[in-house]
Amino acid sequence: MKLYEQVATTLKDRIDLGYYHEGDKLPSVRGLSQEHGVSISTVQEAYGLLIDDGVIESRPKSGYYVLLRQAPPELPATSSPASQPLVVAQWQKLQHMINEYGSQETTKLSLALPDTHAATLKPLTRLMAELSRSANRNVLDYEHAAGSDLLRHQIARVMVDSGCRIHPDEIIITSGCQEALSCSLRAVTEPGDIVVVDSPSFFGSVQAIKINGVKALEIPTHPETGISLEALEMAFEQWPIKACLLTPTNNNPLGYSMPDQNKIRLLELLNRYDVPLIEDDVYGDLSYTLPRPRTIKSFDTQGRVILCSSFSKSIAPGIRVGWISPGRYREHIMMVKYLSSLSTPKLTQMAVAEFIAQGYYEKHLRRVRRDYQRDRDAVIGWLKREMPEGTRISYPQGGYLLWVELPEQVDSNELNTRAKARGISIAPGTLFSASGKYRNFMRICCVNSSNPALEKAIVTLGQLSRELMAQTLLPHE
Amino acid sequence: MKLYEQVATTLKDRIDLGYYHEGDKLPSVRGLSQEHGVSISTVQEAYGLLIDDGVIESRPKSGYYVLLRQAPPELPATSSPASQPLVVAQWQKLQHMINEYGSQETTKLSLALPDTHAATLKPLTRLMAELSRSANRNVLDYEHAAGSDLLRHQIARVMVDSGCRIHPDEIIITSGCQEALSCSLRAVTEPGDIVVVDSPSFFGSVQAIKINGVKALEIPTHPETGISLEALEMAFEQWPIKACLLTPTNNNPLGYSMPDQNKIRLLELLNRYDVPLIEDDVYGDLSYTLPRPRTIKSFDTQGRVILCSSFSKSIAPGIRVGWISPGRYREHIMMVKYLSSLSTPKLTQMAVAEFIAQGYYEKHLRRVRRDYQRDRDAVIGWLKREMPEGTRISYPQGGYLLWVELPEQVDSNELNTRAKARGISIAPGTLFSASGKYRNFMRICCVNSSNPALEKAIVTLGQLSRELMAQTLLPHE
Ligand SMILES: Cc1ncc(COP(=O)(O)O)c(C=O)c1O
Ligand SMILES: Cc1ncc(COP(=O)(O)O)c(C=O)c1O
Repeated sequence: MKLYEQVATTLKDRIDLGYYHEGDKLPSVRGLSQEHGVSISTVQEAYGLLIDDGVIESRPKSGYYVLLRQAPPELPATSSPASQPLVVAQWQKLQHMINEYGSQETTKLSLALPDTHAATLKPLTRLMAELSRSANRNVLDYEHAAGSDLLRHQIARVMVDSGCRIHPDEIIITSGCQEALSCSLRAVTEPGDIVVVDSPSFFGSVQAIKINGVKALEIPTHPETGISLEALEMAFEQWPIKACLLTPTNNNPLGYSMPDQNKIRLLELLNRYDVPLIEDDVYGDLSYTLPRPRTIKSFDTQGRVILCSSFSKSIAPGIRVGWISPGRYREHIMMVKYLSSLSTPKLTQMAVAEFIAQGYYEKHLRRVRRDYQRDRDAVIGWLKREMPEGTRISYPQGGYLLWVELPEQVDSNELNTRAKARGISIAPGTLFSASGKYRNFMRICCVNSSNPALEKAIVTLGQLSRELMAQTLLPHE
Repeated sequence: MKLYEQVATTLKDRIDLGYYHEGDKLPSVRGLSQEHGVSISTVQEAYGLLIDDGVIESRPKSGYYVLLRQAPPELPATSSPASQPLVVAQWQKLQHMINEYGSQETTKLSLALPDTHAATLKPLTRLMAELSRSANRNVLDYEHAAGSDLLRHQIARVMVDSGCRIHPDEIIITSGCQEALSCSLRAVTEPGDIVVVDSPSFFGSVQAIKINGVKALEIPTHPETGISLEALEMAFEQWPIKACLLTPTNNNPLGYSMPDQNKIRLLELLNRYDVPLIEDDVYGDLSYTLPRPRTIKSFDTQGRVILCSSFSKSIAPGIRVGWISPGRYREHIMMVKYLSSLSTPKLTQMAVAEFIAQGYYEKHLRRVRRDYQRDRDAVIGWLKREMPEGTRISYPQGGYLLWVELPEQVDSNELNTRAKARGISIAPGTLFSASGKYRNFMRICCVNSSNPALEKAIVTLGQLSRELMAQTLLPHE
């Protein structure tokens, strides 16, 4: 252990033991340097490490403080969706949201957009520029259908952090995670089949199920531990289920990560009932604490898990670089991917590969993990303060999405309509269910809490919710 | 008309009237300047124009010559495919070809790759580099699902040249033409349906039909006028056809462009039998003569034609920028596109939009149209010289693909295997049929005939074909 790491550990121990409380000022750099008999720069490095680990913060011109954490909020209850396979509805609402994407004026809390202005992304755009101008112009040629070799090597390396030991040949590059999900679904299902999803569930996957002519069976889901394994087992007994589609780590929208023992038990169920799992890991690398949670894929010895992911949330969505680790379904999925879009653009693949290879991805993750945890705490704080009594909030351990249960009288579609008139958009809860449940829920994206517009937006949402409650005091449905 | 244009017209008339023959030397610049009483530079500009128009050529240190054209080759006969809807086969061969794409050593005549080294593409890579570094970093954000506004405006402008007057809102950007085809097919068919294709037909569309669970009905096709309208009408009478998928302009692999009157008659049939057309126009802009042929879409008043295209052949395939003009199927196709890949990368869309807007696309087309016509003539010359008697060759009026009918004894799969041992690959004919027809056909890409490897490859293919013929003198099937 290096000297500055020793100093950091000592400080961390003191905080853990309660010598310093949340929000307390820590000793000055000079003071610590004298106490430990180390140089000023060693103390500064130690503080830097604790900042990176999200333990303390530096306040300009004031000093270092123990990071003020929000107490966990009151969580929504376990969901209880319809217990029948359903043809997915809600397409019109989604369409509405897509069409509005271009609108400039709103504080968009509706979309799951990461921070693309982080300084740690600068090397990426530099690499893109350099590669564009590279003399041999090969960025203009078709990339191999399975994707760039270098990129597949780098992804295999990154996947080690989630417990996976995968050969680069077992990776297929896609145009984002959505293409990964869509191709995987097409490869393992046929029209009329039933696919299991958690509930609430990301609308992109639910609707992809729909256009495949497949039905969705929603399973009750706990906001901290994920899909109910008891309910899942009952579903396997009762229905001819063809596949499971889940986001087990830093779930969208609920934020949960299934505990390892649940992941293992789930895999046992899948093996027993011979059902493939499409595992969406798109937020996996954004876990606040290290090591990041393991994927279910990492426990899989039968090639049953199809891992789908992308760099849309952990780097930037506009580059559209995702991947599939297809297990035993490789041949069929490769074919579907080829016939869906031949190959993925070359330039962005090469740029991302270099970005990872040169160590920039790790640095970037370190930065945004910390930022997003702070954003979560800040926004939860405002929600607690501003939203009507009875509001419940998810408590994610990674990513930047919050799932908010509003008092029953608040219809989030109506809330969204009114919010828009004030320049704010949210994602109404009904988008996250095949059957239009979650009328009084919303998902909000809480990236960049240092932008005052975000706090203002929460204040407005609080006011509007109260307005709606006042108008529906007499239930009339 | 400018002075140099007048001089050029005079010269062109003399050539057309037969005063100069193919291969003849033209008057010197000084001589013409005196004859017409115009400046040296005016004559040089006039000659430049005729070079651009593919009428004459300049031979270094020698002067200007009337371009030597190949007499049209003997064409393959009209095809006569199976007259039943079929589940598409041949997937294994395609898979083989995809997996080999990365291999470095071959003279790849197998793939339809344009010239990405043309000097006229330099502005594109420059634009990509500039946009990557643009301060606001918006290349990192999701683009609107329908695609960049600016790009859709530019495409609407470009489409005017094919007779289409389309509003930018009637365009959806895709990740290449393959995604355009795949989404269109998914939107208008369901598993079990029958789709009509020409025969031979691009394997990407035929196989996309297959993975949709749809059957292909191949229609006899003439190498100069395209799909037989009589056969098509009979098919409409006989089968419940759900869609037509054709490449009516600069067809892959046959090279034909349907005459306008056939395009109009085809549309009448579609209207009469209420069948949508997926029109693949990916080679349309590469027609050798201007104005380029009209699309069937341009005659459509009922929103029945779904036009699919991309810049993969006319600019570069690695950028993966394509589009759909979806007619009356917009809503459904938009949904399928969204759920297939959310959106198309932003950077390449912006770069292509600027490339067109700043006039570079037109310049580039002028250059490659001329080059590809020369390449066609050169390669047809070598094929006539090198291939065994009885070989027939298509005579495209645009693009850079040749469809070659070899003597019956030559199995092009075997030819391809042997060619590979010599560092050459071709696309075997069976890839272009649902039922594995065209055993003795091959498609070759004839870009860049000034590369000596291309002529050598044709010599080798000639030798190998003769070898195969000698070995199969005694028919044994
Ligand atoms: C859970 C989940 N999966 C997949 C996606 C799609 O990701 P991509 O932009 O890489 O296609 C998203 C994007 O919002 C998501 O939240
Ligand atoms: C006729 C035809 N359509 C579509 C495509 C696919 O084009 P893209 O690379 O834009 O997906 C090709 C490519 O070879 C083609 O020849």
